[in-house]
Amino acid sequence: MKYPNGVKQIKTDDNHIHYDNRGMTLERDLNDTNAFYIDSEKAFIYKKPTPIQITKVDYPTRAKTVIREAFFKEPSTTDYNGIYRGHYIDFEAKETNSATSFPLNNINDHQIRHIRNVYSAGGICFLVVRFKKFNTTYILMAKDFLDFLDHNDRKSIPKTYFDEVGHKIKEKYIPRLDYLEVIDDVLGGI
Amino acid sequence: MKYPNGVKQIKTDDNHIHYDNRGMTLERDLNDTNAFYIDSEKAFIYKKPTPIQITKVDYPTRAKTVIREAFFKEPSTTDYNGIYRGHYIDFEAKETNSATSFPLNNINDHQIRHIRNVYSAGGICFLVVRFKKFNTTYILMAKDFLDFLDHNDRKSIPKTYFDEVGHKIKEKYIPRLDYLEVIDDVLGGI
Repeated sequence: MKYPNGVKQIKTDDNHIHYDNRGMTLERDLNDTNAFYIDSEKAFIYKKPTPIQITKVDYPTRAKTVIREAFFKEPSTTDYNGIYRGHYIDFEAKETNSATSFPLNNINDHQIRHIRNVYSAGGICFLVVRFKKFNTTYILMAKDFLDFLDHNDRKSIPKTYFDEVGHKIKEKYIPRLDYLEVIDDVLGGI
Repeated sequence: MKYPNGVKQIKTDDNHIHYDNRGMTLERDLNDTNAFYIDSEKAFIYKKPTPIQITKVDYPTRAKTVIREAFFKEPSTTDYNGIYRGHYIDFEAKETNSATSFPLNNINDHQIRHIRNVYSAGGICFLVVRFKKFNTTYILMAKDFLDFLDHNDRKSIPKTYFDEVGHKIKEKYIPRLDYLEVIDDVLGGI
């Protein structure tokens, strides 16, 4: 809904910012799945709040502080992390409209460094990438993602690479996107 | 710096919101320490961005989005998490002005539940509490924190409890607050 002065009302749900529907569906699916994991005490994985640079704050009353000016910041780590069976879990989730490849400008240099670090430190690290045209969601393990980066100069990862070395996440009713089932398979039932 | 209309300019540094100096010193010490750990590839632990509910966004140009109205939200997890030698690390950091006890209203029910969950799942979980009057900073392991909650109706944890079952963090030059040294000791050099 657009207002005359160019201010746009947006909806948020717990911890998550949605505007222009960007990344909305995958994010919602993951949030629902994580809520299911938490309720069933299977894993404790959360989306981090969106990083924001706050520049003006208003204190109309002691009780209520209002942020009057702030800016979105580039994230320096991935969006999701937590614990699963004692293991550190860390991943980034992205959707793409492309039918043929995943554009690498979706993931910034800080995030790539973070993925390298977590992988080296022994964490379970991966990307969750949805090709919206096919409604197909893949896990690409950090090892395979970094292998691609280290052996290619391409600006995108072809969908065929996901088909070859990625792992499809089956959509279910509950939980919506059972990515830990895939992680169990990949890691041989940790 | 106060402006006539009650809007106050605040400083932020990477990922962190400071106003009224609340929790500033301990937070800065931990950020410096975490930056040192990351640089030396010892551990990858970050402060989560402050959770915010965004209600109005302005798009003056395609390039720059400005948040015009937002509110601070209660955190549902702890402030810091990450990975250390393959282990999931999770903690909350608080300062208190009290000379005698740590008020439990510093930590909300969601956070206590999160600490229980992480502890049960085998994560390394703890509080970092600074008694400002003494400039003394303790680690209180989740087990000892939860033990206290489960066996007391008090609204605060006496400082004597920190002296008995907590672990003092020695202040150094670099890193400022080497809390992983304490964690190594407590866990017998994981």
